[in-house]
Amino acid sequence: MEQLVKEEWDKFKELLFKIRGYYEAIGLLGWDLRTGAPRKGVEMRSATLGMLSAEAFKLQVSEEIGAFTEYFSRPEVMSQLSDNENKIVNDTRKEYIRSKSIPSKRFEEYSVLAAHAQTIWEEAKDNNDFASFEPYLTKIVEFKQEFIDYWGVEGSRYDTLLDMYEPDLTVAKVDDIFSRLRSRLVPLAEAISASPNKPDTEFLSQIFPKEQQEKFGLFLLEQMGYDFEAGRLDESVHPFATGLNPGDVRITTNYLLDNVTSSIFSSLHEGGHALYEQNFGEELIGTPLAQGASMGIHESQSRLWENMIGRSRAFWQRYYGDLQQHFPEQLANVEMEDFYRAINSVGNSFIRIEADELTYNLHIIVRYEIEKLIFNEGLEVKDLPKTWNAKYQEYLGITPPTDALGVLQDVHWSGGDFGYFASYSLGNMYAAQMLNTLRKELPEFEELIAAGNLLPIKEWLTDKIYRYGQSLTPSQIIEQVTGEPLNPDYLADYLEAKYTDLYKL
Amino acid sequence: MEQLVKEEWDKFKELLFKIRGYYEAIGLLGWDLRTGAPRKGVEMRSATLGMLSAEAFKLQVSEEIGAFTEYFSRPEVMSQLSDNENKIVNDTRKEYIRSKSIPSKRFEEYSVLAAHAQTIWEEAKDNNDFASFEPYLTKIVEFKQEFIDYWGVEGSRYDTLLDMYEPDLTVAKVDDIFSRLRSRLVPLAEAISASPNKPDTEFLSQIFPKEQQEKFGLFLLEQMGYDFEAGRLDESVHPFATGLNPGDVRITTNYLLDNVTSSIFSSLHEGGHALYEQNFGEELIGTPLAQGASMGIHESQSRLWENMIGRSRAFWQRYYGDLQQHFPEQLANVEMEDFYRAINSVGNSFIRIEADELTYNLHIIVRYEIEKLIFNEGLEVKDLPKTWNAKYQEYLGITPPTDALGVLQDVHWSGGDFGYFASYSLGNMYAAQMLNTLRKELPEFEELIAAGNLLPIKEWLTDKIYRYGQSLTPSQIIEQVTGEPLNPDYLADYLEAKYTDLYKL
Repeated sequence: MEQLVKEEWDKFKELLFKIRGYYEAIGLLGWDLRTGAPRKGVEMRSATLGMLSAEAFKLQVSEEIGAFTEYFSRPEVMSQLSDNENKIVNDTRKEYIRSKSIPSKRFEEYSVLAAHAQTIWEEAKDNNDFASFEPYLTKIVEFKQEFIDYWGVEGSRYDTLLDMYEPDLTVAKVDDIFSRLRSRLVPLAEAISASPNKPDTEFLSQIFPKEQQEKFGLFLLEQMGYDFEAGRLDESVHPFATGLNPGDVRITTNYLLDNVTSSIFSSLHEGGHALYEQNFGEELIGTPLAQGASMGIHESQSRLWENMIGRSRAFWQRYYGDLQQHFPEQLANVEMEDFYRAINSVGNSFIRIEADELTYNLHIIVRYEIEKLIFNEGLEVKDLPKTWNAKYQEYLGITPPTDALGVLQDVHWSGGDFGYFASYSLGNMYAAQMLNTLRKELPEFEELIAAGNLLPIKEWLTDKIYRYGQSLTPSQIIEQVTGEPLNPDYLADYLEAKYTDLYKL
Repeated sequence: MEQLVKEEWDKFKELLFKIRGYYEAIGLLGWDLRTGAPRKGVEMRSATLGMLSAEAFKLQVSEEIGAFTEYFSRPEVMSQLSDNENKIVNDTRKEYIRSKSIPSKRFEEYSVLAAHAQTIWEEAKDNNDFASFEPYLTKIVEFKQEFIDYWGVEGSRYDTLLDMYEPDLTVAKVDDIFSRLRSRLVPLAEAISASPNKPDTEFLSQIFPKEQQEKFGLFLLEQMGYDFEAGRLDESVHPFATGLNPGDVRITTNYLLDNVTSSIFSSLHEGGHALYEQNFGEELIGTPLAQGASMGIHESQSRLWENMIGRSRAFWQRYYGDLQQHFPEQLANVEMEDFYRAINSVGNSFIRIEADELTYNLHIIVRYEIEKLIFNEGLEVKDLPKTWNAKYQEYLGITPPTDALGVLQDVHWSGGDFGYFASYSLGNMYAAQMLNTLRKELPEFEELIAAGNLLPIKEWLTDKIYRYGQSLTPSQIIEQVTGEPLNPDYLADYLEAKYTDLYKL
């Protein structure tokens, strides 16, 4: 690198590191609000969060960022940069152009609306009152339509939204992937529904003391290699993981007294997210590449630990004895196999976040299709409940009795997060496809799990995925790891094999 | 106020509110570092703290602040401002001029160093390893010497540091006050030392389970009127209080298994600081006046609760039964009067924060004199352990056997807080002087305490002190409350009366 380029690069890096610092502070303030900040300080804290977010945003759309990224995009300069450096420039410039394209006054109006709409949504959900939320959601959709025009359209309008969460994927590709997935999952779900071999799940609803749940959760996190010197476990209403920096990746869980599996699987899920962020390569640290490759890839890492490992028979062969020791009164008379079947029980439920591994994907497909209808076909917000219920009837065979159990259940739309939902199912598919390779490259995979020797799995994931952070795109990662592009058959194969065995189909 | 002045004032207020927001974030990041941030994230967190401090600092020294404070200082504008508004302008301008004098790059380097040094200090203290801390402390002192040059010297170099914590006071004044105090405390300490009526303190060194200590501490905080909806209690190595905003004033304590009084009195102490900050007047909130009048006044409020109330006979007449209930095994056979005498035992100890009310002031005088030697006489950091030990021998008749019990015991220097220690003794003096007035204006003072009716006391303090925040100077406050300037005889009188009774002198 020429001396001048090097000097400019150092200044650019410093500016990016400063933006990162704002997000570390914002992350900690947010974590604190959700884990125990005193009630009376919340209003001023929110103002502080808003101020810091605005400052970070100002830096991201600053003339400086514009000038740096323009300079580093010049062919004669670009050629002096490493692949990682070029990725940083491209990602930063893309974000700059996208953010810059919205008039700041419109963005501010939108931010105020979205913040307000979340409160309205909460009330609407509590009161099962879609009508009160409808005008807000309509305005949010109008804003998003306007933003899509600013951002520009390639392919369909909905593509523009999808691209924000899952670069490389298009509506055409996701349509194809989801329809292939659906065509295999719907008959599987029907066969399960018709099976007489239903697991008994009643024993899961006993009272499981919180202290023991916490001990067991900490034990599992240690087992999977979560580094407590680079993180901590706290409680919040909704579990989450937040990587403040690679040496401080925190997770939370929520203990439900009458549902022991909730905290176990949320710990494994958030633990999976956290392992990813604790193990970014040294060379990425402090740069914008020290984050997940995409929402979908991030989700694949949480799903892999939660479902493919955590809900496997081998896992409970090793850990069920420990679980029984933590809850002797509740589980002494429950066999491991019965526990394994209970935690994999499939049922058509109304609520996405309570859904099983299989039907979860159908919940996502409903949302994906509705979002597409809104942005590509002009579906009106007032018609959402009707469309929602019809899709649930079609894919899951059930009609939500209320909007609270239907179209009002998710927070995402109230915050303007259209295009996000697909990532959850993409995560499942990435995970199953990676699992297929993992099993080939680590043929003793199940024996390792059954022996509680999870570290070789963590090391494989670190080597193949974690360490790259955002230095590769999602499609580069999936092709580099598995040798082929995203293929939904791996998830369908995995689910068919698992549930054929479980339900004796 | 003219329309134009009003508009400018609103802009000025908004800018000050933004600076306040940075300090709220900085406060939370600092709190987090000391209460449970994972070790591996500390280095990057320190960089983030440094960045935010630098940003806040940039705003404080911005041309905008310069222009605003110049504008509002013009006689024709100033006359349109209220007293509080004028105080804001004056304080902000003083801080602006002081800060402006330090090059921002130097300040940022210093902030990063100070954040890092606190972690190093903690380890050094744990390992009794002054040598590992020495290079950091040396650099901190070098920075402070450099800053003193930037700030300018009136009187001695150390005056410049003292003024940051206790405006109005000078080395000459403090020298005088401390010598008057010392001349009365030394004979008192000697008389106590010669008294045959020593309390039995052995029962305090039993094992007191942490969980019960925590319960009792929470109970006392509630009794004194600490608002848990505007704060929380956590653990840290060195107890502290931090007001992130007036609705979020957090305190910490440290539980020593073999010393129940440590957590009790640190809770009362930090609780006293917190009551002050939870009860600033509504009109001050969001402005720079929503803070303590000075370190000394702040400390007077913690000392008043910790010592004048918490170590009084009346207090334990009410609360000793509760304490016994929390620790029946340990205290069932200990009489209240014996407990009262034990917690007021006077002895020459190594650790400042464990010192009694009387000799505490001698611990402070040692630190005050050492700081004076560093900044006025060029004492080197490497010679601190030797000087420390010699002074302890001279004033308290003891030599610390280790640096952990000596020069490494306090956090202050690791954070660059030179000039701060005197405030602790000033706090004792302010508190005793205020107590004298309080007893006159609330003649049933002791009966209220003995009845556990502490809220009228909290209300008196709110009315006389808390609600004014920084809208008055320390000397205005002490004169407004007591009718005269700071006078060390009140503390000496109070201590003589208390200990003459206790030790039957």
